[in-house]
Amino acid sequence: MLSKKIKQAMAGSSAIRAMFMEGKEMAARYGAENVYDFSLGNPATPAPEKIKTAIYDILDKEDPLVVHGYMANAGYEEVREAIAENLNERFGTNFHGKNLIMTVGAAGGLNIIFKTILDPGNEVMVFAPYFGEYKSYAANFDAKIVEVMPNEADFMPDLADFERKITKDTRAVIINNPNNPTGVVYSDATLKEIARILTAKEEEFGTDIYLISDEPYRELVYDGVQENFLTKYYKDTLVGYSFSKSLSLPGERIGYVVVPDEAADSAELIEGITVSNRTLGFVNAPSLIQKAVAECLKEKTNLEFYDRNRIALYEGLTKLGFTCIKPQGAFYLWLKSPVAKEEEFVEAAKKYHLILVKGSAFGYGGYVRLAYCTSYETVVNSMQAFAKLAAEYGLKAAE
Amino acid sequence: MLSKKIKQAMAGSSAIRAMFMEGKEMAARYGAENVYDFSLGNPATPAPEKIKTAIYDILDKEDPLVVHGYMANAGYEEVREAIAENLNERFGTNFHGKNLIMTVGAAGGLNIIFKTILDPGNEVMVFAPYFGEYKSYAANFDAKIVEVMPNEADFMPDLADFERKITKDTRAVIINNPNNPTGVVYSDATLKEIARILTAKEEEFGTDIYLISDEPYRELVYDGVQENFLTKYYKDTLVGYSFSKSLSLPGERIGYVVVPDEAADSAELIEGITVSNRTLGFVNAPSLIQKAVAECLKEKTNLEFYDRNRIALYEGLTKLGFTCIKPQGAFYLWLKSPVAKEEEFVEAAKKYHLILVKGSAFGYGGYVRLAYCTSYETVVNSMQAFAKLAAEYGLKAAE
Repeated sequence: MLSKKIKQAMAGSSAIRAMFMEGKEMAARYGAENVYDFSLGNPATPAPEKIKTAIYDILDKEDPLVVHGYMANAGYEEVREAIAENLNERFGTNFHGKNLIMTVGAAGGLNIIFKTILDPGNEVMVFAPYFGEYKSYAANFDAKIVEVMPNEADFMPDLADFERKITKDTRAVIINNPNNPTGVVYSDATLKEIARILTAKEEEFGTDIYLISDEPYRELVYDGVQENFLTKYYKDTLVGYSFSKSLSLPGERIGYVVVPDEAADSAELIEGITVSNRTLGFVNAPSLIQKAVAECLKEKTNLEFYDRNRIALYEGLTKLGFTCIKPQGAFYLWLKSPVAKEEEFVEAAKKYHLILVKGSAFGYGGYVRLAYCTSYETVVNSMQAFAKLAAEYGLKAAE
Repeated sequence: MLSKKIKQAMAGSSAIRAMFMEGKEMAARYGAENVYDFSLGNPATPAPEKIKTAIYDILDKEDPLVVHGYMANAGYEEVREAIAENLNERFGTNFHGKNLIMTVGAAGGLNIIFKTILDPGNEVMVFAPYFGEYKSYAANFDAKIVEVMPNEADFMPDLADFERKITKDTRAVIINNPNNPTGVVYSDATLKEIARILTAKEEEFGTDIYLISDEPYRELVYDGVQENFLTKYYKDTLVGYSFSKSLSLPGERIGYVVVPDEAADSAELIEGITVSNRTLGFVNAPSLIQKAVAECLKEKTNLEFYDRNRIALYEGLTKLGFTCIKPQGAFYLWLKSPVAKEEEFVEAAKKYHLILVKGSAFGYGGYVRLAYCTSYETVVNSMQAFAKLAAEYGLKAAE
C-alpha cells in the first residue's frame, strides 16, 4: 500500500533521470563512444586535486571522533565562518557563520527552506522553464507552483506576467541564476526589476515574500559575465547553494543555505531551517566533506573545459540550422524543437543515439535541453548525428 | 513568516539536542573534565582505522568523476550488492542489491519509507519509550503517532496494549532493537508474538501493516546476546539501518533501507522509496562514504569499550541506590527518577554537572536516559556527582 502522493510522484517521475537511465542502457548496448548522452547535469571535469589532499590532511591530522561525529545540526562552526568570510570577500556582503546552515546539497537546502516557510496552499512562483524538481519540493509541503512565462526572444522572465501572478498567498519565488535549463544569466536590470516588484507586492499585501536563489551554477559563467549574488538586490533573499557543480562533487551532497540578517524574521528562519534539517531526516550535512570544501573555497572548476563544449555545441548546432538560445552560464543549452511536440523530436533523436531532455520536463514545451557537461569528443562526434537529425526535419545548414 | 508546522516543531524541539548544547556550554564554562555529559548518542570510540585506509585507496585508485559523481538514486550497484551479500552471510537472508536503497543515515531512511507509505491521518505505532524524532518524522507526512505502553518490570512492550491499539488506519509499526532509550533487547518470544499479532491484524483489516525495524544499534549487544535481523520474523518488515554507531560515522549520514521481496508491494515500494530519496531532497546517499563503508562491512566497533562503561555505570548507579534497567544493547541506560516529575531530577543533576535527558522526551516520564558513549573516565568520575545526587534524594547505598 503506497501513499497517494508517492503514486502521483512515481507517475510523473523525473524525465531527466529516465533519460539518464536510458542513456546508460544505450551505452551498454552500443558502446559509450557511440552514444551522445546530453541528459544529466553530472559534471564532466573532475573535482580539484585539492579536494583529495584536503581529505588526506583532515584524516591524517584531525580526531576521527570529530571528523565523522555529530556536530550542531547547522554544521561545523568553523566551516560556516570560513564560507561566510569567503562570500564577504567576493561579494562585499556581511555574513557571519550564524547566517549559514550547511545542507545536504541544494536539494536538501531548498526542502528545509520550504519546510520552514510553506503552509499548505501557499504559492511558490517559478520562472519557466525551470528545474522540474521544484514541483516535487513544493508538493512535499502541499504548496502550489505558479509558473511565470518567459520572453521567447531571450528567455528572460516576462515581468508583467510575474507582477500579475503574485497574490497574497505567494510565499516564495525561486530564481535559478545562471539558469537550468536555458543557460541564460539574468541581467542586472532584470534582477533590479524583480526586486522592485517584490518589494511593492510585499507592501501591497502586507506579507513577506522570500526570493529563493537556487545557485549551484553561480561560478559557471562565460563571455566575461560576472558572478553575482542576489542578497544585494532584495532584502528577503535566501540563498541555496551547492558545491556539486563548482567543485564537481554532486554525489557528495554538500551545500549551504544563507539567511541574511536583513531578511524578515531572520533569526527565527535560521532556527526553523536548522530544526527542519534535523526533522526532515538530513540531521546535518555530511561531516568529512564539510571540512574538505572549507579548505577549497578558492578552488575553481575547469571552466575552459565547459566553455569549449559550449562554443562547439552552440556553433555546431546553429550551423546545422537549429535555433538555440546562446548560453552564458551553467552547462546547458536550450534548443528549439523543429516540431511543436518536442517529445517526438526527443524520440527521433534517440535513433541517432542522441539523448536529450524534453522541455516539458521543465514546464515549457517546444524546446529541449542539452547538458554539455560531457567530454569534448562527445560534442564533436555528436555533430554527424545531429546532422542526420537536422536532415530528417529538413533544416537548412547555415552558409 | 514561518509555517505553522515548523513553529510547533520549534516549540517542541529536541530535548536531546538542547541538553547536548547545554552540556557543551557547561564544558566551556567549567572545563570538559568537570562535566559529565550523558546526553547525546555520539559514538565515543573512533571509526575503525580501515575507514581511513579505504578512503585513501578509493581516492587514489578510482576516477573522481565516479567517486564524487551522481549515481542511481538508490546508490552504487556494487555497494548495494556487497551489503546484500554481507547480510545474507550473517543472517541467512536472500537479498540482492535491488532490495537495498542507500540512504542519508537511518533518519533519511525512515523519512523516505514514511513518504512512500503514509497518507495523512494514517497511524504509526511506537513502543514507548521511543526515540522522540519518530514524532517529527510522522508529522512530516501528517500521520498520527500511537504509543504502546511498556511493562515497567522489564520494559518489553505490553503486547495486549499493542494488539488493542492496532486499527484499520495502522500503516506502520516502528521497532527499535536494541532499544534507544532503554538499552533493552527484545526477546525472540516477544518478536514472534509481535509478528503473530501483526499477521492476524493484517488479515482482520485486509491491510498491509509494515514493521519498520530501525536498527542502528544492531551490532551493539552485550552479555552474549546475538545480533538479530527482523525480516525473518514477519514478511512485511522494512529495515532502516545506519552505520553511525556500528562504524562510529554519525556525522557522515550513511545508511540503507532493506525492502525484502516478500514484503507487500515490494517492487513498488522499492521504486517509491527511491523516488522519495530524490524528491525529499536527499538525491542519493553521500558517494565517497558509500564506497568506504562497502569496504568495511566486516569491521567492528570497539564493543569492549562500551561494555566497560555499561558495567561501571550500571553497577555504580545501582550501588548508590538508583533503580536502573540493566541494558543489554545500544549504549543507553534507563534510570528511574527518584521523583515522578523527572524534569526536576534532570535539573537537580545539572547542579553536579550531570547532563541527563528526561524520559518524557521519549514519550515516557518518570525516567531519564543516560548515553554512556562517553569516555570511561567520565563514567568513573561522575560517580561522586551521582553520589551527591543520590544523597539529595535520600537514596540508600546498597550493601
